[in-house]
Amino acid sequence: MASLIDTINNPQDLKKLAPEQLPALCDEIRQYITECCARNPGHLGASLGTVELTVALHYVYDTPVDKIVWDVGHQAYAHKILTGRREAFLKNRCYNGLSGFPRMDESPYDAFGTGHSSTSISAALGYATAAAMRGSPEKAIAVIGDGSMTAGLAYEGLNNAGAGDSDLLIVLNDNKMAIEPNVGGLHNSLLKLTTSRRYNKLKQRTWKALGTSAIRDSVQRMVKAGKRLFVKESTLFQPLGIRYFGPVDGHDVIHLIHTLKRLKRLKGPRLLHVLTIKGKGFAPAENDQAAWHAPGLFDVETGNKLSECANPTEKKVKFQEVFGHTLLELARTNPNIVGITPAMPSGCSLNIMMKEMPERCFDVGIAEQHAVTFSAGLAAAGLLPYCNIYSTFMQRAYDSVIHDVAIQGLKVVFCLDRGGLVGEDGPTHHGSFDLAYFNCIPGLYVAAPMDEEELRNMMYSAQDKKYITTSIRYPRGSGTGAKDWKKPFRFIEPGKARLLSEGKDVALLSLGAAGIMGAKAVALVAEKGISIQHYDMRFLKPADQEVLDYVTRTFSKVVTLEDGCLIGGLHSTVSAYAAGRKEAISRVVGLGIPDRFIQHGKVQELYQACGYDTASIARALEDLAVA
Amino acid sequence: MASLIDTINNPQDLKKLAPEQLPALCDEIRQYITECCARNPGHLGASLGTVELTVALHYVYDTPVDKIVWDVGHQAYAHKILTGRREAFLKNRCYNGLSGFPRMDESPYDAFGTGHSSTSISAALGYATAAAMRGSPEKAIAVIGDGSMTAGLAYEGLNNAGAGDSDLLIVLNDNKMAIEPNVGGLHNSLLKLTTSRRYNKLKQRTWKALGTSAIRDSVQRMVKAGKRLFVKESTLFQPLGIRYFGPVDGHDVIHLIHTLKRLKRLKGPRLLHVLTIKGKGFAPAENDQAAWHAPGLFDVETGNKLSECANPTEKKVKFQEVFGHTLLELARTNPNIVGITPAMPSGCSLNIMMKEMPERCFDVGIAEQHAVTFSAGLAAAGLLPYCNIYSTFMQRAYDSVIHDVAIQGLKVVFCLDRGGLVGEDGPTHHGSFDLAYFNCIPGLYVAAPMDEEELRNMMYSAQDKKYITTSIRYPRGSGTGAKDWKKPFRFIEPGKARLLSEGKDVALLSLGAAGIMGAKAVALVAEKGISIQHYDMRFLKPADQEVLDYVTRTFSKVVTLEDGCLIGGLHSTVSAYAAGRKEAISRVVGLGIPDRFIQHGKVQELYQACGYDTASIARALEDLAVA
Repeated sequence: MASLIDTINNPQDLKKLAPEQLPALCDEIRQYITECCARNPGHLGASLGTVELTVALHYVYDTPVDKIVWDVGHQAYAHKILTGRREAFLKNRCYNGLSGFPRMDESPYDAFGTGHSSTSISAALGYATAAAMRGSPEKAIAVIGDGSMTAGLAYEGLNNAGAGDSDLLIVLNDNKMAIEPNVGGLHNSLLKLTTSRRYNKLKQRTWKALGTSAIRDSVQRMVKAGKRLFVKESTLFQPLGIRYFGPVDGHDVIHLIHTLKRLKRLKGPRLLHVLTIKGKGFAPAENDQAAWHAPGLFDVETGNKLSECANPTEKKVKFQEVFGHTLLELARTNPNIVGITPAMPSGCSLNIMMKEMPERCFDVGIAEQHAVTFSAGLAAAGLLPYCNIYSTFMQRAYDSVIHDVAIQGLKVVFCLDRGGLVGEDGPTHHGSFDLAYFNCIPGLYVAAPMDEEELRNMMYSAQDKKYITTSIRYPRGSGTGAKDWKKPFRFIEPGKARLLSEGKDVALLSLGAAGIMGAKAVALVAEKGISIQHYDMRFLKPADQEVLDYVTRTFSKVVTLEDGCLIGGLHSTVSAYAAGRKEAISRVVGLGIPDRFIQHGKVQELYQACGYDTASIARALEDLAVA
Repeated sequence: MASLIDTINNPQDLKKLAPEQLPALCDEIRQYITECCARNPGHLGASLGTVELTVALHYVYDTPVDKIVWDVGHQAYAHKILTGRREAFLKNRCYNGLSGFPRMDESPYDAFGTGHSSTSISAALGYATAAAMRGSPEKAIAVIGDGSMTAGLAYEGLNNAGAGDSDLLIVLNDNKMAIEPNVGGLHNSLLKLTTSRRYNKLKQRTWKALGTSAIRDSVQRMVKAGKRLFVKESTLFQPLGIRYFGPVDGHDVIHLIHTLKRLKRLKGPRLLHVLTIKGKGFAPAENDQAAWHAPGLFDVETGNKLSECANPTEKKVKFQEVFGHTLLELARTNPNIVGITPAMPSGCSLNIMMKEMPERCFDVGIAEQHAVTFSAGLAAAGLLPYCNIYSTFMQRAYDSVIHDVAIQGLKVVFCLDRGGLVGEDGPTHHGSFDLAYFNCIPGLYVAAPMDEEELRNMMYSAQDKKYITTSIRYPRGSGTGAKDWKKPFRFIEPGKARLLSEGKDVALLSLGAAGIMGAKAVALVAEKGISIQHYDMRFLKPADQEVLDYVTRTFSKVVTLEDGCLIGGLHSTVSAYAAGRKEAISRVVGLGIPDRFIQHGKVQELYQACGYDTASIARALEDLAVA
């Protein structure tokens, strides 16, 4: 059998194929994605689910003139492969390689960059509105998953789109999943819709008939057909002014093409409900969809996952696991503790507590604002919520933290997972800003444990009355990897730093897990006879005033180190303290994320690019010491 | 007629009244609110619309054990009056007086503090969930307006509530208005629902019958009655798993009580759709609802608004008007310019452009995230959006700015209205944080005009290729009030400060309109022989490096001045620059909003409390000069 995929360098090539050839092409694309992801980890499941949809969209629409906006974007691998990036896809998510998400600066076919969920309707409505203003015929299509539909931004877009007559097609890619099984009222009603007798009748009769009808029908007839497609059941969409069509089988590429051709000729905001299977075509991924969302390395033949670690028994504990086990431990003795996650129970390890006490854990779906304001309500009622949100997603809930938690002095413990650079997911996912954006909020403590044991003790201590609402941020993955992290709890005073090493040449103030690299750098320069006074600051806020006073009185050279943006975080706090002294004697040099967006790649590559991997820190300490 | 209102010091007193007395009480409350607001400005319209609803809720529910969560909270005046704050209400929104919004620290009846919209469902769900966990019978009620329903947070709350069986009542207070007429697909469908023949039949028949039926029916019968109330039309709510009841007349207090009693006995998440009239009972407010949202001083008898200014012809121009007129002027010559506002067309003055070019202006409803991501989509399509959002509400769109605009290098001009302290609306509304939370985002310019002319020139200059995405923030109200602000446009180089006065004792670096007070203070201390080198920095980012270099090389004493939080803004930037010098010679003292939430009151009172009114600045300059 001839290879079709190798003949496709852009959507124009795709259009040269006859419809009958497309199922075979889809198989090839699926095979290629699976093989690439097996050797170079990526978001396998989502992209396997959208192969037919991607082929159909590019077959029917005139991209890149017509704009396809992929929500989240990790399902867009087939899109990348069909739009001139088949070879480049081998370096997907690698440093200087393709981004794992659409990026406007990567390809004209990437109409809008993504990474976070639920932006596609708003962005595509922007395109549709601009086209209408210009009287231009270009089309705008948002492809959004059912999981993304739980976020408020998607609803805001729907509500605004539904009020007008924009030529906007929303494709609801319904696989019943976010990263994990989707939750929420909408999910339940979509499920009802797709499993109803009505749907099955529709699928078998109406859609089959439509699928085989000629595609040269007049626009007039199309519109009528379109009306016939309209399911009269109650969905979320009609009350918002969006015409609802479907559901249709998202793995029948021929039917999809016929349907999209019809919908293309309709006017006004409309939604096509497409049913897909996450992981489609690769049995292990179909059978355990959450585990195969981003499976890491695996063997295509056996479906066995491969560990990157040569000896799995030496696997280091992750901060995430420490969070999960510690929260359960605390919850066992403190009946007021509840756990909240917006759609990341496995990612953040809240599932450990969920298993034992499901009634005290809340997965609220992709809904960060609600996660925080709901936590505030729980706190107002006297509970103690541990609300776990990835640093980058907490940006969505910024107002809720200020307005619903901090202003009211309600006590919530925010556990900010994936603080600092996260690696291959790149700029949309780095947790660069939380230290800065929380630093300026009154009524908030901002803490960052350096290692596993400190995370554990901070989570323990945060229960205490001495703690107000506190953000505890820690990175993705492992810290020191010390096996003995599970020691008896020790209380940490809020605002108390700890001295890690004594020295006289330079003071190093580090915050969080970056301090591990800092300590290694201190050891390196010690070999050259340079001695560093190293503090693990633990708290950005309240910052240890005694240490700041002592350091800026004693050291003429101070280095700050943080896995966060240099503007607004530890570097700012220490600088303001130093510059505020009547007699300023310290020069303060900051190591951290510079004022630019950091690309994707392995975290070590990125630390180096930012100048705070161990070697760079050592160099900075040495340069300053001898300056 | 005896005065009923004076007998009510808490809801227990209210419950002593017979239902027949309640309409008269409602009239008295309405009269009292109107008279108070005439002499002491407040949110008149919204609170007049909810009098009967408030009385009914406190009559039926056992507050403060049962929790009423008011969305936004400016409709809660009757609630305050009925819960022991009748006298205190005379000092509504005054410094050290009552807050204009519910506050948990003001009264146990204020179950959850508010100010921003759309938080009530999430917060009330928190209460309901906590009660369920404890097996406690307390009830949770969210009272939310139709305008607030356009925001994503409300939807996230609905979707999460609808997935469970929480004992949550949502009262949808539908007056067809946000501050201005509500917009969006949901609004249209609610409108259809309430104007349909079906509704009118229901209102006349079903509800009348229910209203007069005895209230001692068994729970069993109530449930059945409840089911009969269920309108089978498609609403937003059923697909989300929320049972919908209504609509009912929100000004028929007896009917409301009967209805609430029935709904109280049902289980699971449910919504009562209540129709009210904003401004109800005060004819001028009913007739022009937007204008009477917060009317300022007025004459109760005539309904004439009173100007606080003795001579209205000397009325100063406001920054808002400068924005509105300037945008229209720019849009006339630049066809790519479009204007976006989330539900504040009059408040921000986008209505000026709207009148002349409605097709290029977009009021997207209370939906800040969508406003920004939609702007990003418009920008991706080649337009130049001027997106006007109040500083405090921009907190809602923080991720959209980072993820959808800045990372992609799309060019949007953010006009941040009400930056800095706003006065009587208090801590939920102060624009304290924008300078800090934008400072840390790469790919963003952060500008703040000192006066009207500078706002105009920055808006003009931002079109230029030299400008990337730029935030232009300015305060509520007037600046210098110079009548000649409408001069020919002049280009301002990004990152260029301007020297306002030369001096040798202290350098004063001010950002934004606070510089007006700064300049006055400079003049004051000059009388004492103290000379100040005063720069209007104009840009926090890029900060003028030449000025920073010169100042920190030349002056041992530097004062920064900003109408924003001290952490993360100008003070941080200047301090980091000063502390980073090899030879640090400058001491940097910051004037701005200290690290606590600032209460409500007149802005001058608040500036003084924060230490940066003119007199305080002069004192700080003098103290430092002689130190």
